Amino acid sequence: SINGERLWQSLMLMAKIGATDKGGCNRQALTELDKQGRELFITWCEQAGCETRYDEMGNLFVRRPGRENTLPPVLTGSHLDTQPTGGKFDGVYGVLAGLEVIRTLNDLNIETLHPLEVVAWTNEEGARFSPAMIGSGVWSGEFTLDYGWSRTDKQGISIKDELVNHNMLGAAKCQAFAVKAAFELHIEQGPILENEALQIGIVQGVQGMRWYDLTITGKPVHAGPTPMEQRQDPFMGLADISKRLYQLAEQYAPWSRVTFGDIKALPGSRNTVPEQLVLAVDLRHPEQAVLEQMDLQFRQIVAEVCEQYQLIGEIRDEWNSPAVSFDKACVNAVTNAVAQLGYSAKTMFSGAGHDSVYVSRVAPTSMIFIPCEGGISHNEAENATPQDITAGANVLLAAMVEMAEI
Amino acid sequence: SINGERLWQSLMLMAKIGATDKGGCNRQALTELDKQGRELFITWCEQAGCETRYDEMGNLFVRRPGRENTLPPVLTGSHLDTQPTGGKFDGVYGVLAGLEVIRTLNDLNIETLHPLEVVAWTNEEGARFSPAMIGSGVWSGEFTLDYGWSRTDKQGISIKDELVNHNMLGAAKCQAFAVKAAFELHIEQGPILENEALQIGIVQGVQGMRWYDLTITGKPVHAGPTPMEQRQDPFMGLADISKRLYQLAEQYAPWSRVTFGDIKALPGSRNTVPEQLVLAVDLRHPEQAVLEQMDLQFRQIVAEVCEQYQLIGEIRDEWNSPAVSFDKACVNAVTNAVAQLGYSAKTMFSGAGHDSVYVSRVAPTSMIFIPCEGGISHNEAENATPQDITAGANVLLAAMVEMAEI
Ligand SMILES: NC(=O)NCCC(=O)O
Ligand SMILES: NC(=O)NCCC(=O)O
Repeated sequence: SINGERLWQSLMLMAKIGATDKGGCNRQALTELDKQGRELFITWCEQAGCETRYDEMGNLFVRRPGRENTLPPVLTGSHLDTQPTGGKFDGVYGVLAGLEVIRTLNDLNIETLHPLEVVAWTNEEGARFSPAMIGSGVWSGEFTLDYGWSRTDKQGISIKDELVNHNMLGAAKCQAFAVKAAFELHIEQGPILENEALQIGIVQGVQGMRWYDLTITGKPVHAGPTPMEQRQDPFMGLADISKRLYQLAEQYAPWSRVTFGDIKALPGSRNTVPEQLVLAVDLRHPEQAVLEQMDLQFRQIVAEVCEQYQLIGEIRDEWNSPAVSFDKACVNAVTNAVAQLGYSAKTMFSGAGHDSVYVSRVAPTSMIFIPCEGGISHNEAENATPQDITAGANVLLAAMVEMAEI
Repeated sequence: SINGERLWQSLMLMAKIGATDKGGCNRQALTELDKQGRELFITWCEQAGCETRYDEMGNLFVRRPGRENTLPPVLTGSHLDTQPTGGKFDGVYGVLAGLEVIRTLNDLNIETLHPLEVVAWTNEEGARFSPAMIGSGVWSGEFTLDYGWSRTDKQGISIKDELVNHNMLGAAKCQAFAVKAAFELHIEQGPILENEALQIGIVQGVQGMRWYDLTITGKPVHAGPTPMEQRQDPFMGLADISKRLYQLAEQYAPWSRVTFGDIKALPGSRNTVPEQLVLAVDLRHPEQAVLEQMDLQFRQIVAEVCEQYQLIGEIRDEWNSPAVSFDKACVNAVTNAVAQLGYSAKTMFSGAGHDSVYVSRVAPTSMIFIPCEGGISHNEAENATPQDITAGANVLLAAMVEMAEI
């Protein structure tokens, strides 16, 4: 069984890098702080006797040899980057729990048949660079390396620039290698486990999600003399579009999700009706067919509302991540681990995207969830209990060892 | 009668400074381009034999001596700054028409009893620095010099900084001096004159206007796993607030105006429900009592909607410019000029704020409007005909000469 205190302390030390006033973390992908976090992690891994390597996307791999080093490794990991108003656990927990598995096996002098690897994927959050999970996406072949390198943040700085600036552009090719089994341990980021007072979520799959840039174009005119009925005001369109999209979410409740994460007005002058609003829209549903239906209705709503207000609505697809089902053998390994350890658990879907979505395309994969306080995540108040942190890492240890011995 | 061709040519030359691809102008207050525009204007004024001076707010005054130089001047002018997506006429027309009046009197060798002055006020648009009309506002005593100097743009650069950077911080005190009469010639920026096929608007006053910063605060949570009914989403509040504010505009139609000019989302991450939306809201009505009623209802709507969605709504007053009635004698001088020149005209209110709002607090003031194409302004497509441009300047000449001789 893992050392819960050591894991908790590592989490708290890592949380100092990018710590915010409100107790959260702002350690966005490929910033100087992200680099500092990775360096701390590398130091710990080297102290645990592991070798580390960066690949061309800045994905950071850590290897613990097995008894048979030509066999494919059992992989675990997640990400060290955070949201701008992020917490201490999202992603970090999965990486540091992987390290804790290695530390525990070292303590117990256990050598596994297969080697073990822990990975910190680049830019999982999608907050600084869109889309999310881009490091694992390039690795798995979902995106080309050029696509990954060329993604830019709001200031126009590219991933490639930042990999070079912070010395994280590694020599290793960013492409999938043979993996025996992959596990990702994560906080749930939703309220289900907490509401049902369960310790572990056995994750069967991930809901489908689509990201869009919605542009609503009207006519910039003077706020004072221009009669209301002569306006082509994108805000009038937005009011109806957002109302109707929230109704769409109700139509497919309780699993549907509709989120406007960001908005910009152009020219953005107090006394001018904006010419343009640009919005980031996020639609999700665990059933792929329903998500596709939501996509169609979204397009229709935008078309209808824009016609009504004489606006031009444009929808640009930014990301499309279909619903995923995880590997049966990996899900079974987690189920066995939970049973053996006697934790309360249920099988469930993930509402958030994770690197495992892309890893699962090229390797047998599944995930393990633990509850988080109030189901809150992407928020500085994100929290989890030391007990649940320990329980999750114990499940990870057992599942990894099971797969590493067969 | 003025030289319409010369005036039109001056307008077109000035429009080259900050010219945009779409045929408009982006010459925002106290930028390098604003400075270039003012220097071109100063050159023309010096060629016309006038002296120029900057005051402490960068307001630029041009003087043509009269027969009796201890008498207060007859003042005209407007502004040279534009909106980010502005046109060639808003403000510029009033300044260059003042110069054309001087050029015409020079051509005709006419000396007036009172001296004449033309002014280009600083930051009338309120687009770069809020509030609008700040140069004339400080001059008239509505704002203190410190308030004026300390206003900052979105990058945090202050008016004082930019006055120093561009060498426009003049020695002259920024405070009202005795003025015999003040006139401002402007495009209507609305559709009334064009719809009624009239040449001149005799402006009796300006509608009241209020600017607010509306902040809607919710809770940042993950876009994926967080159930819709557990969210405190500022966009849900905005949908209802904007719907109800547009209904408020209908309640007080046809003269009410409701505009959202700008918006920002914090943290502004695609897969996070925003913690905060910050909006620029502009409410207007020509009747002060109705505007005050709209203000109250606005506050109530925000309170009710925010309570319903468990959001926090905060309204910060950014600017409050009550409805204005212009000076009878000045309005009469314009009416006489129109009659004498035989132009079609009507008396009307201004829907836009103008420097005359503040000038009218310390000097007898009125305004003259000409039609603009489609009533469109604060738009690069803003346009007016050479015929109307000439007619308006002729009215200005006649009104100024009438007041300068008594
Ligand atoms: N776990 C997590 O926050 N992933 C980001 C991708 C998403 O938006 O679901
Ligand atoms: N004329 C003009 O555009 N003034 C700006 C102040 C306002 O918003 O009305």
